Amino acid sequence: MIIDVHGHYTTEPQPLLTFRDKQLAGLADPMRRPQSTELSISDEMLVKSVEPQMKLQKARGSDLTIFSPRAAGMAHHVGTEETGIVWTRMSNDLIHRVCALLPENFAPVGQLPQHPGVPPKNCIPELERLAKLGFVGVNLNPDPAGGYWTDPPLTDRWWYPLYEKLCELDMTAMIHVTSSCNPAFHYTGAHYINGDTTAFMQLIQGDLFKDFPALRFVIPHGGGAVPFHWGRYRGLAQEMKKPLLRDHLLDNVFFDTCVYHLPGIELMAKVIPVDNILFASEMLGAVKGVDPETGHNYDDTKRYIDQLSLGSADKQKIFEGNARRVYPRLDKRLKERKTR
Amino acid sequence: MIIDVHGHYTTEPQPLLTFRDKQLAGLADPMRRPQSTELSISDEMLVKSVEPQMKLQKARGSDLTIFSPRAAGMAHHVGTEETGIVWTRMSNDLIHRVCALLPENFAPVGQLPQHPGVPPKNCIPELERLAKLGFVGVNLNPDPAGGYWTDPPLTDRWWYPLYEKLCELDMTAMIHVTSSCNPAFHYTGAHYINGDTTAFMQLIQGDLFKDFPALRFVIPHGGGAVPFHWGRYRGLAQEMKKPLLRDHLLDNVFFDTCVYHLPGIELMAKVIPVDNILFASEMLGAVKGVDPETGHNYDDTKRYIDQLSLGSADKQKIFEGNARRVYPRLDKRLKERKTR
Repeated sequence: MIIDVHGHYTTEPQPLLTFRDKQLAGLADPMRRPQSTELSISDEMLVKSVEPQMKLQKARGSDLTIFSPRAAGMAHHVGTEETGIVWTRMSNDLIHRVCALLPENFAPVGQLPQHPGVPPKNCIPELERLAKLGFVGVNLNPDPAGGYWTDPPLTDRWWYPLYEKLCELDMTAMIHVTSSCNPAFHYTGAHYINGDTTAFMQLIQGDLFKDFPALRFVIPHGGGAVPFHWGRYRGLAQEMKKPLLRDHLLDNVFFDTCVYHLPGIELMAKVIPVDNILFASEMLGAVKGVDPETGHNYDDTKRYIDQLSLGSADKQKIFEGNARRVYPRLDKRLKERKTR
Repeated sequence: MIIDVHGHYTTEPQPLLTFRDKQLAGLADPMRRPQSTELSISDEMLVKSVEPQMKLQKARGSDLTIFSPRAAGMAHHVGTEETGIVWTRMSNDLIHRVCALLPENFAPVGQLPQHPGVPPKNCIPELERLAKLGFVGVNLNPDPAGGYWTDPPLTDRWWYPLYEKLCELDMTAMIHVTSSCNPAFHYTGAHYINGDTTAFMQLIQGDLFKDFPALRFVIPHGGGAVPFHWGRYRGLAQEMKKPLLRDHLLDNVFFDTCVYHLPGIELMAKVIPVDNILFASEMLGAVKGVDPETGHNYDDTKRYIDQLSLGSADKQKIFEGNARRVYPRLDKRLKERKTR
């Protein structure tokens, strides 16, 4: 079985986007507020909307995608905490419906109603709701300010109530920023990658997993700059008298394979232990198009992993085993389906 | 000849640091302002201060280091524009003296008196002074706000007067942030690397080198995350209907080799054309200490390049040829010395 741990709902039905427009327009002009949170999206519309993803699963040979709302759509810095809560619930509900309709193809991950300057503990009610709905994890934004980084680092106690709840519910968090309102940062080309790099460095500086040994973070996009600068990070940890990175972080921090060329994936497999690498493509996502150097889509990352000179047991870990270990709620979900 | 294009004066004599303390203390309490900008640092003190660097040059087999003030010391976000101008001149003057005393070992690169929210054109007087003193380039900070990124992207016309002057004077700019006053960003572990990645993405989005075909930027630390995500950047440029990265940027943008492990350097040599790679170590810099996996210093980057399976002509480019091409003022300086 091949599990892609990183897919976003980038083909949302138009009524969701129309709702969001009206909701944000309503901040400027209350007359424009949407009258209802009922979107009238039928099951047929939902199934139809994810046909592109299912077609690619089939074509590229993956089975199940861990599926969450559009990353740039979370936009925690836009609107108010209140509009964010409504928007989050609606976005998550659609994910829930897609995954309930197509459980062989998708497993749900949610967004959180984070807001800049607002304690992350305010997200707990939505997190509990998601757990009840069978979600296997959430996206956690280390910069709710959308490129201005005005909230405390991930190791700050500011975040602890949320971590406690994540552990209690056995939910996994992917560290994923959203869109950027800072003109310095292109969202997929700079902000996403910087977010990954920054989060990892924050974790090096702290001792978060001493306090939360059961907390699990997935850092997407191959960990940003981290594998390329693995020597730098090993050296900085050493200078800071931290344990070896393997002992300091790698029981709790994992990297996905959203790196869109073979040499990058090769480097990753060389420096990051195979137990910490999870297959992912972010397909229908950040980078579209065909690589003229290979004739294949940039984001067809399975091809790169297929080409690695790893044994089949190691590849099985990357494609399935690690995902089931790092997302225990997914493993449970899959086992329950099997015994039905 | 082996040229290291990235060294900072991280062993400054104490009187310089004492001056800076008094200068910044003077902002809070004018009584504490330093009485003079005369530091009373003798030539002997200067030579003594760079003995560690010279010892390492000898031990590791490099000849000349392109030498600039401590990167984190620039701190453009600290103090006022006025204190920054004084601080910049003093820092640059020390670099000038070191390089005049030890011209076989060091060639000067300056800092600029940038200040957040202040037009970069205000740096032109110092830039002209540096050119007259024989400096071969400058460090250009894409984020004078020290981690808050409140100034316009590098492609904005805000920067154009400075670029015009750089071209006129044939000066090369290394894109290098300074310290971070944002607790989210560790300076050498996140801010530096993010700065590199962000700058490159800004350049992809723009068309800066159509306006300035003679402008030359060196992006340090191996280009941040760029080589690791080379497929992502090729794909994003393609989506934006930009030319191939080679044509869009690589006549003007170069990467140094401050990547502190062999697999990183190997990746870099695989995806970045050899003409765009410049040897550098940032020694006595960002990452100190011995890598337990190799028994050698992390920042002894020459060892990694020596191990690459490149021909000697290509290695000569990385070690010398590219530096002389990308820093034409350095080439001229070296030729003039030879004919004396």
